Parts: sequence; C-alpha cells; structure tokens
Amino acid sequence: MKDNAPLDLPTYEDMLEAHERIAPHIHRTPVLTSSYFNDRTGAELFFKCENFQKAGAFKVRGACNAVFGLSDEDAQKGVCTHSSGNHALSLSYAAGRRGIPCNVVMPRTAPEAKKAAVRGYGGTITECEPSTTSREAVFAEVQAATGGDFVHPYNDPRVIAGQGTCSKEMMEQVDGLDIVIAPIGGGGMISGTCLTLSTLAPEVQIIAAEPEQADDAYRSFKAGHIIADDAPVTIADGLKVPLKERTWHFVSNHVSDILTASEEEIIDAMKLTWQRMKIVMEPSCAVPLAVILKNPEIFAGKRVGVVVTGGNVDLAKLPWMTS
Amino acid sequence: MKDNAPLDLPTYEDMLEAHERIAPHIHRTPVLTSSYFNDRTGAELFFKCENFQKAGAFKVRGACNAVFGLSDEDAQKGVCTHSSGNHALSLSYAAGRRGIPCNVVMPRTAPEAKKAAVRGYGGTITECEPSTTSREAVFAEVQAATGGDFVHPYNDPRVIAGQGTCSKEMMEQVDGLDIVIAPIGGGGMISGTCLTLSTLAPEVQIIAAEPEQADDAYRSFKAGHIIADDAPVTIADGLKVPLKERTWHFVSNHVSDILTASEEEIIDAMKLTWQRMKIVMEPSCAVPLAVILKNPEIFAGKRVGVVVTGGNVDLAKLPWMTS
Repeated sequence: MKDNAPLDLPTYEDMLEAHERIAPHIHRTPVLTSSYFNDRTGAELFFKCENFQKAGAFKVRGACNAVFGLSDEDAQKGVCTHSSGNHALSLSYAAGRRGIPCNVVMPRTAPEAKKAAVRGYGGTITECEPSTTSREAVFAEVQAATGGDFVHPYNDPRVIAGQGTCSKEMMEQVDGLDIVIAPIGGGGMISGTCLTLSTLAPEVQIIAAEPEQADDAYRSFKAGHIIADDAPVTIADGLKVPLKERTWHFVSNHVSDILTASEEEIIDAMKLTWQRMKIVMEPSCAVPLAVILKNPEIFAGKRVGVVVTGGNVDLAKLPWMTS
Repeated sequence: MKDNAPLDLPTYEDMLEAHERIAPHIHRTPVLTSSYFNDRTGAELFFKCENFQKAGAFKVRGACNAVFGLSDEDAQKGVCTHSSGNHALSLSYAAGRRGIPCNVVMPRTAPEAKKAAVRGYGGTITECEPSTTSREAVFAEVQAATGGDFVHPYNDPRVIAGQGTCSKEMMEQVDGLDIVIAPIGGGGMISGTCLTLSTLAPEVQIIAAEPEQADDAYRSFKAGHIIADDAPVTIADGLKVPLKERTWHFVSNHVSDILTASEEEIIDAMKLTWQRMKIVMEPSCAVPLAVILKNPEIFAGKRVGVVVTGGNVDLAKLPWMTS
C-alpha cells in the first residue's frame, strides 16, 4: 500500500456481512459474570469470553472474514502473514477450514507450542530471525513465491470488520452497557469495537487498556499522531505491536480514553481471574481488568463489557512462577 | 448414628425441594462443549461446569441445602464439619449467606489459601493434626462446645439431595444424554446423580471415574461391599475419602461401571482441558475425561454428560510443574 493512497476503511455493513460470512466457523462465545469482581469494583462487569473462541482468541473472526471473503480464484493461491502469535494460529485455522494454503513467517524463537498449533491447523511455517529486518525480508520472499493474499494481523479492513463482530454479539447478549473496554496493541479489536459501536450504540464509551511498558497507543492518543515503539517489553505479549493508519483512524475518532496498568497489576489481575472465575486467559486479556481495579471511580455504578481476548498461554511458564 | 439404624436416604422429592431451596444461592452453571475433545473421542461431550459454581465447586449445592433447610432454632447454633477441601469452603459460604456460625476442623497442614478462603466466607477454623484420630477428637470437642449441626461432606441425605440438583440441571440443558460420568471419592456427587437420574432418566448410564491410586470405590463395586483405604495418595486430592453407607447404597444400586485412570493420565487430561477448553479445573475433575480418552470404545457415538466438579487449585503448585 502506498503511503498517500486514500485509506480503505471497513464500514458497518462490512461488519454485518462479516458476521454472516464467519458464523459457521466461529463460536458465539458466552458472556460470564463474577459477583466477586462486581463486589470489588462496584461495577457490573460482563466478560465476553473470546478465550473460548476457535483457535483460542478473537483473532479468528478477522482471519475467517479475510479467508472466506476471497474469490475462488484468489483463494487458490492461499493466504500468508507474519505473526508469532494468535493471528498465525487463526489464519491457519481459517485457511484449513477453506482448504487453501496458509504460509506464516514466524521467528525461529517463537514457542514450539505455537508452531505446533499452526502446523496442526495445516499452516506452513517459514522461520525468520527475531528481527523486523529478517521478518520483512523473509516474508517478501514467501509472498513472492506463493502469491498468497497478505492478511495483516490488524491493519486490514477485512480483519477490522471481522473483529467488530465481537461487540455486535456482546450488544445482543447484554442490555444497557455504559462502557466497553478491551486491550489495545495494534488496535484491531478496538477498531472493530469502534466500527460496530459508533453505529449500533454510539452512547457506549469505548476505553482501551494498555500495558504501561508498551504504552505507545496511550502516547499516540495524547499526542494526536502515531508513535511507534521499537521493541517494548511486557508480559502482555499480544500488545507489543504499534498502531497503523487504519487502526489509528478508529482510535483517534472513537476511543474515549486509554488507561494503562503496570506489569505487576496485569499479573495480579490475571491470577485473580484464574482463581476467581476459573478461566484461562492470556496476560494481554488481564489488562482491562487491571485498569478497572486501578480506577474504580471511572467504572463504579456502570455496566461494563470487558473483552477477554484470548486464552493461549504456555502453561509451563505462567508469569507468577517467575515474578 | 448407630450402625444398625435404618438408613435415612434422600428421595427424588427431597432433591426437587433442595433445588428450590438453594436456587437463590447457587449458579445455574453453563454446559460447555469442545469440538477438539469430540473429535478426539468420537463422542459428543457436554461439560457441566461446576468449577464456575459459587465457592468454586458443586459441594455448595449440598451445603446450601443443609444450611437453608435448618429450622430457625437449629440454625442458631450454626453448623460444623471437618474437611480440608471444598466442603469446608462451601459450608462456610452457605452459613455466611444465612448469617449463622460455621465451625470447620481442618488439618494444620491444609493449604493456607483454603484456610484464608474459609475465613473469607466467615467460617471459624479449629486446626487438628493431619490424622484421623486427631481430626475426630478435635471435631468432637468443637461440636460439643458449639452444638452446631454436623453436615458431613457426603454421607448426609441433605447433602446427597443437594448434589442431585446438578444432574437435574444438566438434563434440562442437554437433550438425549446416553451416559453421565462424574468422579467418585466419597460418592456424594455420584449418589446425587443416581438419586436424580434413576427417577428422571433411568435409561441414562451412570459411570464413575476414579484414580487408580485411590480405587477403593472400584474395588468395593467389584467386591459388593465397602472397602475403605486408609491413606491413598493421588493428585486428585478431592477423591481420597472412602464410600459410606448412604453413598454405597446409591453406587451399588445405580452405577453402571467404575473406571480408573493413572496419575499420568489424570494430569495429561487436566492439562489438555486447560489448554483446549481454557477452563481452570481441579485434578479430581480431570479423572472422567482421562477415563473417556482411555476407553474410547465405551463412549464413541454416545452423548455424554461430564461433571466438571470444581476449580479450586493452587496456581503456584500445578501438577505439571513437578511431574
């Protein structure tokens, strides 16, 4: 994409079409409540459990929308992407369901469990060194060799439209929400949330939650332009990537606020959720709850939708083991 | 209770009354499915998630039935029990909801987290040494001093009737089950299941799942009389206790079979559930799934209800950390 090309942004209708398109391939995930967290926060919290989603994360919504939206001709060459995380799993899952090739460039240092899961879904992995330079060079080769359609993890209108289906479901499942809060990394989930709610329920406040140690979206939001960090270090490994122009569009236009939490607050919130709600969630998902526990004055008395974005964790390396 | 007194057994109507009585104090827990486990087993599995239950386990059903069934006069003196596990938490929770005293005798070696949870619900702990002799002596003192009503963890008709409400809900939530499987320790959950299904759905097979290393129920079932082990050692710490006369009544009359699993099979099933279903379950809950994975010929092609009994685990001591 050229820098000065007009942005192709997804519309509300794209999101509605996405939901019909992906419905056979995803779960309509349940919404759980917790009297413990309601008592502690004074808010009414509704947890949209995308950790129970196919492939273990909301990312499968956008990936399925991209894959199943391809023409038969385009689909033949398959899809490709670079990702060390849930997008790689999700795109492999979606491509596997359609029976088309999926090529993923992953750093050779990515966890073996994630690589095994990609292969389990039928994806093909090409390894790169763990650097941006290597990743881009290897990805260019893979794309040239396969001719596959590049599905960016978040800066893709099909992906944003797909992620927007999550808040559509949440609005069908819960009445009268005042706030929806979700973690922010590259901004795909938050952008989808903005896309859906700005038409469906513009009165609902959208708050993004970010690790203090990877607070580029927070600083971008305050500065009024994208600030990208090179290599932030945080336990919330799904949230290290920077905003891009399409997600910045939604964040800058529709997000009410971005709040941050420290590493310790994130780990505490994650552990507390496992203990009290008995659900397995990733560190990235714990950031919204950490932010709510930290800022009770913002959330008390409100009905708050909390997007639990995924549950793909390495059970042999839980953060409270080493912290 | 005298050895030769006729057994006071709960009836189906007791179970129906129990469900009305406890409904305001418990969750109607969800039933989850997993296409991964369906694919692996060839069965259709329906997981009744009592790990999401109040106080983190099904035990709260029986405890609430006992506590809320007391007359106002009897309730004044409160309740008491001995337990190092979920029954202690559940009885404390129930008594706290009713605003009456709860005295629990716990071994001094019980996990601090469990003791803290009992106190958090308003229960009073008297510690004993980790031996049967000490426990019984200390419990006799506590009961004499408080006059509280003794609510046995499983060999109590009110408790069995309460546990029976779980399969009543499951039958309302899932059509056409062929089999219901639950773990067996003292036999409270299995007895409640027998109580309910023998009237409501006598065509449903009831299978109990037990650790090989604590297989006293299995051996009792084969021998035709209760065999009690002294101190079995298993990771499934909720399943170490022996059958008693009331639970033996139900097991010997209504259970189709008892199947066992090794420690390794239990831990593998537990880890796989966390990874694939993203739910936190106790080792004890993993025994049914371990048994299903081990005996596919029994379950393939069947619709199987699986009781996930609880989710109270020590996150700092997960079994795959040390195994």
